[in-house]
Amino acid sequence: MQKYGGSSVADPERIRRVAERVVTSAGRGGPVCVVVSAMGDTTDELIRLASQVSPGAHPRERDMLLTAGEQISIALLAMAIADLGREAVSFTGSQAGIVTDTAHGRARIVELRADRVRDALAAGKVAIVAGFQGVSTALDVTTLGRGGSDTTAVALAAALGAGACEIYTDVDGVFTADPRIVPDARKLAALSYEEMLELAAAGARVLVLRSVEYARRSGVPIHVRSSFTDADGTWVRGEDVLEQAIVSGVAHDTGEAKATILGVPDRPGIAGRVFRPLADAGISVDLIVQNVSAAGRTDISFTLPRDSLAQAEPILAELAASVGADGYACDRDVAKVSLVGAGMRSDPGVAVEMFEALAEAGINIEIISTSSIRVSCVVRAGEAERAVQVIHDRFRLGEGG
Amino acid sequence: MQKYGGSSVADPERIRRVAERVVTSAGRGGPVCVVVSAMGDTTDELIRLASQVSPGAHPRERDMLLTAGEQISIALLAMAIADLGREAVSFTGSQAGIVTDTAHGRARIVELRADRVRDALAAGKVAIVAGFQGVSTALDVTTLGRGGSDTTAVALAAALGAGACEIYTDVDGVFTADPRIVPDARKLAALSYEEMLELAAAGARVLVLRSVEYARRSGVPIHVRSSFTDADGTWVRGEDVLEQAIVSGVAHDTGEAKATILGVPDRPGIAGRVFRPLADAGISVDLIVQNVSAAGRTDISFTLPRDSLAQAEPILAELAASVGADGYACDRDVAKVSLVGAGMRSDPGVAVEMFEALAEAGINIEIISTSSIRVSCVVRAGEAERAVQVIHDRFRLGEGG
Repeated sequence: MQKYGGSSVADPERIRRVAERVVTSAGRGGPVCVVVSAMGDTTDELIRLASQVSPGAHPRERDMLLTAGEQISIALLAMAIADLGREAVSFTGSQAGIVTDTAHGRARIVELRADRVRDALAAGKVAIVAGFQGVSTALDVTTLGRGGSDTTAVALAAALGAGACEIYTDVDGVFTADPRIVPDARKLAALSYEEMLELAAAGARVLVLRSVEYARRSGVPIHVRSSFTDADGTWVRGEDVLEQAIVSGVAHDTGEAKATILGVPDRPGIAGRVFRPLADAGISVDLIVQNVSAAGRTDISFTLPRDSLAQAEPILAELAASVGADGYACDRDVAKVSLVGAGMRSDPGVAVEMFEALAEAGINIEIISTSSIRVSCVVRAGEAERAVQVIHDRFRLGEGG
Repeated sequence: MQKYGGSSVADPERIRRVAERVVTSAGRGGPVCVVVSAMGDTTDELIRLASQVSPGAHPRERDMLLTAGEQISIALLAMAIADLGREAVSFTGSQAGIVTDTAHGRARIVELRADRVRDALAAGKVAIVAGFQGVSTALDVTTLGRGGSDTTAVALAAALGAGACEIYTDVDGVFTADPRIVPDARKLAALSYEEMLELAAAGARVLVLRSVEYARRSGVPIHVRSSFTDADGTWVRGEDVLEQAIVSGVAHDTGEAKATILGVPDRPGIAGRVFRPLADAGISVDLIVQNVSAAGRTDISFTLPRDSLAQAEPILAELAASVGADGYACDRDVAKVSLVGAGMRSDPGVAVEMFEALAEAGINIEIISTSSIRVSCVVRAGEAERAVQVIHDRFRLGEGG
């Protein structure tokens, strides 16, 4: 199973290059199934077109519109492969049997009826499947949400019993930190599903959460690699087969904002009352901290995607009033820096060392949140890059695994 | 049933205008089903993209590619209609149950399973169906060939029992001649299926043959009209309900070439031997004339689409040799001018009057061919426009029906 993202098939020249790579794989024997995203900016262009036609949401029709993008790329890739002398056949999500629920725009796969793909592979053909899309139980065209093509590839790999799912992208793999910020960031040879999940949640853009979750549940190893070179990338797989490093990498997320509800009466059940309306509005809240204060009142702070802020503010205002809080405050000028590593479980000193590194660099920590394999700190946005650098240095992440 | 062509939905503004028209229709009560083509030049752009990726033909994948075009336009139109407060739901050809044979690129409709469309209409929704496309009996995406959206609309109108099929286009209807050439050309209020078939075959671009044939077989009246005005266009319907004019219009076709096989031995069965190889190559041959000569040899001339000439020439060369002819000649510089009218059946003088009009204008006729309701003449390409004008004048076609 191979998956190529939009940048790998952005123009005719790149499509032909992917075709060559696919044909080379096919030449090694064994079935080859390829999942493709829409070409380059096609999806964004279609979204822009929709916004020019209609101010409305129209999730069903939006999915009908966007799925045209992959239909174009699968057809072109199948043509290019056939030109190289390999039989290839393209399948829409619906034809590939990617059956989803009816949640347009963020549908979940409920079943795979991949018989047509299986038959094509059995007949020695290369199967090209449209990523990101499926058909709902109501027989409508659906999309799987951001990064959905990765999910398609992993789900198909699982259904077809493929040994691994190769995700071809425009980067070389998963790095110990963003190489644009940390020049000696190092490509990781392997990490566990759990670490990848934490890195993705912490802002690493290589793979989306959902595809990693799917891979973990189905036990499909993922190989993230560059579509421009033949070099090995990064394997994401079960922990049992990995030798654990204490710390795998540093991720940062500059797309977050901080909200604080000030002077909340400190009563049982208050957190539920605060977060229920945000959840109902579909706003995903991250790091939550509650600072207990002396006077029976408390400040509740949390992070949320910055582009949800406009939607969240009126909810926060109403909320502050209804729970008898003193008010609320929003801060767009924050960033989240996270350290991830499965080895942290057995080494409680990691978090402390991270705090010290930041303190020595004079970087103030505003919120701390930890999981068993991750420590996240919210800092001023302007200090995020420096924070990543000092943490990367402190744990000598550039020095080889 | 309404059908909008690519120019009617070429940009967001026009899509919104079509949506308004559809909603106005829906407001009059009764079910509204709309067939749409791809936006403006989308299909041509996709064909260009394919040619940049692949020199090959790949008919199945080409259909997968091209059908993305209508998927975009149906989704956008459904959004625009919903914005105006009418529930609308889009359907691909496959979802609309347009079942075809497996002849990719020129598939024929073999069955309509329009249950989803019917259910949507019964629920009071506007149904938007992708024109030009279907799903084959092998479950692959197919296209119906040039003008296929008209065929989709007529076929659906027949299947749904619609009273008429309104074909919205960028012209006001069917004219007595091309208004760009004949300034006093007049819009026809109505003509018969047979006349429309002859006009279409003679080069009138308003409707394609196949959709008119389908309408005739199924008895669905077609109303060809402008998507930019509310004026009535031209009705195409059964002869019995029409008052016959002697002559309906003049059509011309400048996309033809003339081929002649010179000095063919005049033996029985020779025509079949000449035209079989061309038919097998998929070259459609029009007007055929055979001039019997004294010496037991004959010249066979015929017209064919000019862009088939490159493909036809080697066949002609081989043919001339194999039947013992003297050789062959091709002439790209011709045009076909045709006069069509159901009333001709009862007035044998019409053809003569046409020949006289051309003779008086000093225009030489190279080939003549007639059907019961059409007379066609091949003339020099440079004289075609003048030929149309003098014929239009002679039959006073500009003076009202």
